[in-house]
Amino acid sequence: MTIAFEISGYDGAARLGRLATAHGSVDTPAFMPVGTAGTVKAMLPDNVAATGAQVVLANTYHLMLRPGAERVQRLGGLHRFMNWPGPILTDSGGYQVMSLAGLRKMSEQGVTFQSHIDGSSWDLTPERSIAIQHALGADITMAFDECTSYPVEKDEAAASMRLSMRWAARSKTAFVPRPGHGLFGIVQGGVFPDLRAESAAALREIGFDGYAVGGLAVGEGQAPMFDVLEALGPLLPADRPRYLMGVGKPADIVGAVLRGIDMFDCVLPTRSGRTGQAFTRRGTVNIRNARHQDDPRPLDETCACPACRSYSRAYLHHLWRAKEMLGRMLLTWHNLAYYQDLMRGLRQAIGGGALDSWRAAFAAAESEGNIEPLSVDHS
Amino acid sequence: MTIAFEISGYDGAARLGRLATAHGSVDTPAFMPVGTAGTVKAMLPDNVAATGAQVVLANTYHLMLRPGAERVQRLGGLHRFMNWPGPILTDSGGYQVMSLAGLRKMSEQGVTFQSHIDGSSWDLTPERSIAIQHALGADITMAFDECTSYPVEKDEAAASMRLSMRWAARSKTAFVPRPGHGLFGIVQGGVFPDLRAESAAALREIGFDGYAVGGLAVGEGQAPMFDVLEALGPLLPADRPRYLMGVGKPADIVGAVLRGIDMFDCVLPTRSGRTGQAFTRRGTVNIRNARHQDDPRPLDETCACPACRSYSRAYLHHLWRAKEMLGRMLLTWHNLAYYQDLMRGLRQAIGGGALDSWRAAFAAAESEGNIEPLSVDHS
Repeated sequence: MTIAFEISGYDGAARLGRLATAHGSVDTPAFMPVGTAGTVKAMLPDNVAATGAQVVLANTYHLMLRPGAERVQRLGGLHRFMNWPGPILTDSGGYQVMSLAGLRKMSEQGVTFQSHIDGSSWDLTPERSIAIQHALGADITMAFDECTSYPVEKDEAAASMRLSMRWAARSKTAFVPRPGHGLFGIVQGGVFPDLRAESAAALREIGFDGYAVGGLAVGEGQAPMFDVLEALGPLLPADRPRYLMGVGKPADIVGAVLRGIDMFDCVLPTRSGRTGQAFTRRGTVNIRNARHQDDPRPLDETCACPACRSYSRAYLHHLWRAKEMLGRMLLTWHNLAYYQDLMRGLRQAIGGGALDSWRAAFAAAESEGNIEPLSVDHS
Repeated sequence: MTIAFEISGYDGAARLGRLATAHGSVDTPAFMPVGTAGTVKAMLPDNVAATGAQVVLANTYHLMLRPGAERVQRLGGLHRFMNWPGPILTDSGGYQVMSLAGLRKMSEQGVTFQSHIDGSSWDLTPERSIAIQHALGADITMAFDECTSYPVEKDEAAASMRLSMRWAARSKTAFVPRPGHGLFGIVQGGVFPDLRAESAAALREIGFDGYAVGGLAVGEGQAPMFDVLEALGPLLPADRPRYLMGVGKPADIVGAVLRGIDMFDCVLPTRSGRTGQAFTRRGTVNIRNARHQDDPRPLDETCACPACRSYSRAYLHHLWRAKEMLGRMLLTWHNLAYYQDLMRGLRQAIGGGALDSWRAAFAAAESEGNIEPLSVDHS
């Protein structure tokens, strides 16, 4: 194995673990802030680390187009370029090519697409995706896959999954194993249990350092997502990290951890922070709401982040009305701190064998205060 | 005197001093970052302080309209509201009312104007301006004045200056003296030496804790500005701080310090930071320029700010092209650090009696490298 993963404890299906990469360790369950274009938006890397984040995600699609993977490599790699000395996971570009690029053409070989920046034409194949992630210097490289759209007919989901499995094998062949660097495969198959099982078996046959679950949180809802995770539980290697891609809301993460997931990423905390929505232990707060304009309280009295330690809701509301960048900076920081606190709480609960009571308290507090419902946008 | 000012050394007309306010001391010559709406744009207050800034400026006009001075007062005052524990200087609102507000009506009593936010009608008088600054909790309050436009005929400049002097007397009457809080008068009179002398005499007669020079850096150019400062030198109380409002470019500040100015404020470092221009010891750098895209060097090799310590020009250029907030954050930080380093250098040179050689080295380095001229916008 090129990436070590040690599981130190269980609470039911939930696992307490540690992933060791070339750029440091990651305590799991872990949430990875998204640094799409080589920056976690509105945050200095030191501050991302201060929230407790140990690993960030960066996007192959965005970085290959701008500034270019080989440019980043010439400049010393992505860690140095973006000043993040810790572990970096890069996605494969597959998801973005499917969801962001306007014009694209699929073949067995790969995808040809047009850049959303200037319309120029690009190719992405399993081999090219792996080479780009290598050039960037990713600690964790993701296999190149096709993210099936939702809803989809079963035969289309099957064909898409099987293409992804052939691409997974080519990704494995293209990947250059080296200490502290690993390659993760991605289970596809939509909401169809037999397709998911087929996909998991295909990936195990190829052999990966970790197993991701893709194609969820695309509109199917929480219950079908949890069903997929439960069905996959016994089908994935027990000793390897499990990563649920693009998830999600706090309650999604809690439920997925209960079902054995070790790693998460999502734009929700950072994107919500930039649009005025804060996650708190008592539900979400929309700081744009005028009812905050005279409120001397912090966003969340139990949070130790700078936004909560030093600023009132009234001030944060003022920053919003005045369109001041500091508002987006502070809410992003708070949301990332909230997510890391959530993961820390989950890890402590698993370690203490107290996950059931922790989960009950989490659900009670969240539902009690949830007076400003969050509009979730997973795109 | 409600604000102590001690001068510990001279080099020619330049002064090394310290201002003591209710919220701490300020070493002079000092540059005050501008926190218009209760935030130095794109910066956390801790980071503003980390650059070496000891005092910030906030704008009466913006804060009276939004969130409202009395609201800030109810929330514990501006220091607490914006989380800046150090000294705060507030302007009087006069300059903004003249330059920002579309519709305004002047009278002996004051100004009636319409908010640029929602068109609502507001009054500003010397008494109201002082009351607002009191409500905000300013350490240094500015007298309410009319900032004469430029160019202007002499008789209009004279009438405007004399109105400002009557408003200065009313500002003094309205001001509530208390330890560590001071009121500064503002010399007006355009580029006319006799009007400036008349204004200085009028202010001395009223008596202020400090003396500001207003109505410069409005398009008259550097030489006429320096002429006004030289002429004012002997006309202002030697033992009181002197503040040149809204200035300026680094070379303007150096020249003004040489002519006895102790305090400065300007939006230039913050605004330039948000538009991609960086001040360096070898002139300005426009990070948007494509020639930086492969440049592994920092903005300024001799700068210790986070932008220069940890990021390449290539990365900063990338952030600009990708429209990432972090680019504006880092360039703002760098520019504020540059300005504070400039002031520190000036203070050390004055303290060491080496201002002449310091100034020569500054001018040589700046002109040598100035290959990306800065378009200065004082508005």
